[in-house]
Amino acid sequence: MPDNAPTRGFPNAEFEMRLDRAQRRMEALGFDALLLTTEPEIRWFTGFLSQFWLSPTRPWFLVVPSRGKPIAVVPSIGTDALARTWIDDIRTWPSPRPTDDGLSLLAEALRDAVGACGTVGLPIGAETYVRMPLDDLERLRSDLSGVSWGDATGLMREMRRVKSPAEIDKIAEACRVACDAFDRMPDIARGGMSEIEVFRAFKIACLEAGADDVDYLVGSAGFGGYGDIISPPSDRPLQAGDVLILDVGLTVDGYYCDFDRNFSVGPPSDAVRRNYEIVWQATEVGIATAVPGATCAELFRAMNAILMPYAEAGAAGEVGRLGHGLGMVLTEFPSIAAWDDTVLEPGMVMTLEPGMATAPGRMMVHEENIAVTDGAPRLLTRRAAWEIPVLEP
Amino acid sequence: MPDNAPTRGFPNAEFEMRLDRAQRRMEALGFDALLLTTEPEIRWFTGFLSQFWLSPTRPWFLVVPSRGKPIAVVPSIGTDALARTWIDDIRTWPSPRPTDDGLSLLAEALRDAVGACGTVGLPIGAETYVRMPLDDLERLRSDLSGVSWGDATGLMREMRRVKSPAEIDKIAEACRVACDAFDRMPDIARGGMSEIEVFRAFKIACLEAGADDVDYLVGSAGFGGYGDIISPPSDRPLQAGDVLILDVGLTVDGYYCDFDRNFSVGPPSDAVRRNYEIVWQATEVGIATAVPGATCAELFRAMNAILMPYAEAGAAGEVGRLGHGLGMVLTEFPSIAAWDDTVLEPGMVMTLEPGMATAPGRMMVHEENIAVTDGAPRLLTRRAAWEIPVLEP
Repeated sequence: MPDNAPTRGFPNAEFEMRLDRAQRRMEALGFDALLLTTEPEIRWFTGFLSQFWLSPTRPWFLVVPSRGKPIAVVPSIGTDALARTWIDDIRTWPSPRPTDDGLSLLAEALRDAVGACGTVGLPIGAETYVRMPLDDLERLRSDLSGVSWGDATGLMREMRRVKSPAEIDKIAEACRVACDAFDRMPDIARGGMSEIEVFRAFKIACLEAGADDVDYLVGSAGFGGYGDIISPPSDRPLQAGDVLILDVGLTVDGYYCDFDRNFSVGPPSDAVRRNYEIVWQATEVGIATAVPGATCAELFRAMNAILMPYAEAGAAGEVGRLGHGLGMVLTEFPSIAAWDDTVLEPGMVMTLEPGMATAPGRMMVHEENIAVTDGAPRLLTRRAAWEIPVLEP
Repeated sequence: MPDNAPTRGFPNAEFEMRLDRAQRRMEALGFDALLLTTEPEIRWFTGFLSQFWLSPTRPWFLVVPSRGKPIAVVPSIGTDALARTWIDDIRTWPSPRPTDDGLSLLAEALRDAVGACGTVGLPIGAETYVRMPLDDLERLRSDLSGVSWGDATGLMREMRRVKSPAEIDKIAEACRVACDAFDRMPDIARGGMSEIEVFRAFKIACLEAGADDVDYLVGSAGFGGYGDIISPPSDRPLQAGDVLILDVGLTVDGYYCDFDRNFSVGPPSDAVRRNYEIVWQATEVGIATAVPGATCAELFRAMNAILMPYAEAGAAGEVGRLGHGLGMVLTEFPSIAAWDDTVLEPGMVMTLEPGMATAPGRMMVHEENIAVTDGAPRLLTRRAAWEIPVLEP
């Protein structure tokens, strides 16, 4: 990573500020504690960053009381790592322990936080899940008789959707790294290489440019366009006339970029050139529209208006939206969709992802990452070329 | 990837065999259908492999009826990818759709499978979670009045813990790739490099050796040993006298290896040499003990007996076990632990992971991956050197 990369981690003041915001909101909503079980929720409050979450074996819990600092209830394998965060109250058990995998410790921590008959907020709405065995959750609820449960989805969305300057710096660095790797594509990818080989070369370029991990890379290539943007790469060699899309979510210090770039293998056809320019133009309109006070629905309509006259099968189509929030997770709320009335605020980081079906089974998708500011948005990615870049056939 | 790498994907016969096994067991347990929501569960039945699961936005469902093929109820962005699997009945909706994010489609598919008052098996036990909003799950259960719910944790464990020969080939290839990358460590890592730089160089070596992704790489270095094996790498430069551990879970065609290697920066001290050899010897005993008919608890005790006379703070200690199952997920059941009486069967793939605390805040851990056979286990990793390898200081 270059010398001007942002410092890793956050000062404690950042977590104090987050906790203060959350506790004010908890008070307004009548929550005496929050119970959190997933990686981004727990990391947002604690700073605890670990790939160990990839292992589904052990549950991890955070109890956020309405006063005082959060209580971590975690497997003892995490003791040292948690002790290096700003959290003081760390309660551990040797997990996995089938007879009681942290449940009695968790019940005690919740009782400490809410008393005999308080209210616990747990995120249970759209785009959430509870990361613990359902059987254990049901047992916990029955053990904590007298305690009420509320939905903390809205609270957690409100907390996480506006990013701090330090968070935006990390996302910007992830975007910078991916842009540098995309710039090298004409040197590392050409006709005759399989999709698998191109993906591997691009992942190496991302690591060399400063990525911690290339967590997400999807895409495909096809003659005149591509149809499926969520599958792994195939053995098929790139051929002259192919359009290749790579959509990358790489991380720097636990924060994602999420954007794509298109390439033509050999000179593009007129149709490819035209479709590329239309979607590029829709992105341009998206950038111009993403000012504070605009809603996600307005942003959707502005981009959609550019696409609709040309789209064979309708814009958004199977993807269901034209962009989304971005941060500690590859895809966050809100959605740039006709049904999402979320108002843009300074500090929100979004992907603008206009796409259209250009023919049956063929799409064209562009994507940039922006941070909403007081005025025009800050472009975190370097803007894609307005003509489709060409790879050697 | 080299020419002798295993073919990607599986023949349909593999999925037919899996479904047949599952439906026999469903009949015995009285399940009219299974409801599955997580990546490995759905991939085991369908072969659907996608990094898109990293996005928490959309739920994906699979209904496995007691007769006939599974029904996929998935976001329409997955239509093309699912159509390329052996599944015929694919029901889609444009997700995200906050008013009904697949719930009515799912309820209909479950009614089709179980009728008015059948039983649905859902994994709710240890090491599981339900990947959908809890609020939606509760609404589903209330909509499907008359339907009973059972715990399918045991069934899914039984299905997945014995791997097919084709699955073992993929895990073996992942192990081969990681072994090749570890062999290059003396060329790519040396004293003065930061942990971050060493991790990056090693990830690139894994990709060059044929990894699809280096999903998991943890480890640390410290003078005479390391204390925390779940944290990201730091800026600290490797110094003479350090012991470095790298624990890697990379994937090939959706299957993991999971093992570690230790390195001494410059010549090891006598204590480091001794601790390395003790844990190496415990692994050796683990390999000799992992025959069909032995239990995981016996395997634990055999390895633990080697470690206990030397361990300062007890073997296993904070990790809670000395190994685990391995396959589509980095850590699978069973656990090599005193409390796990699972009997080893041919086809089970396990990590042997003896570790001990050598001093306060200092550990030594070894790890190999094996497949249980009719006789002695098949070592999928190339056995670690019996003397700790040395990096240039």
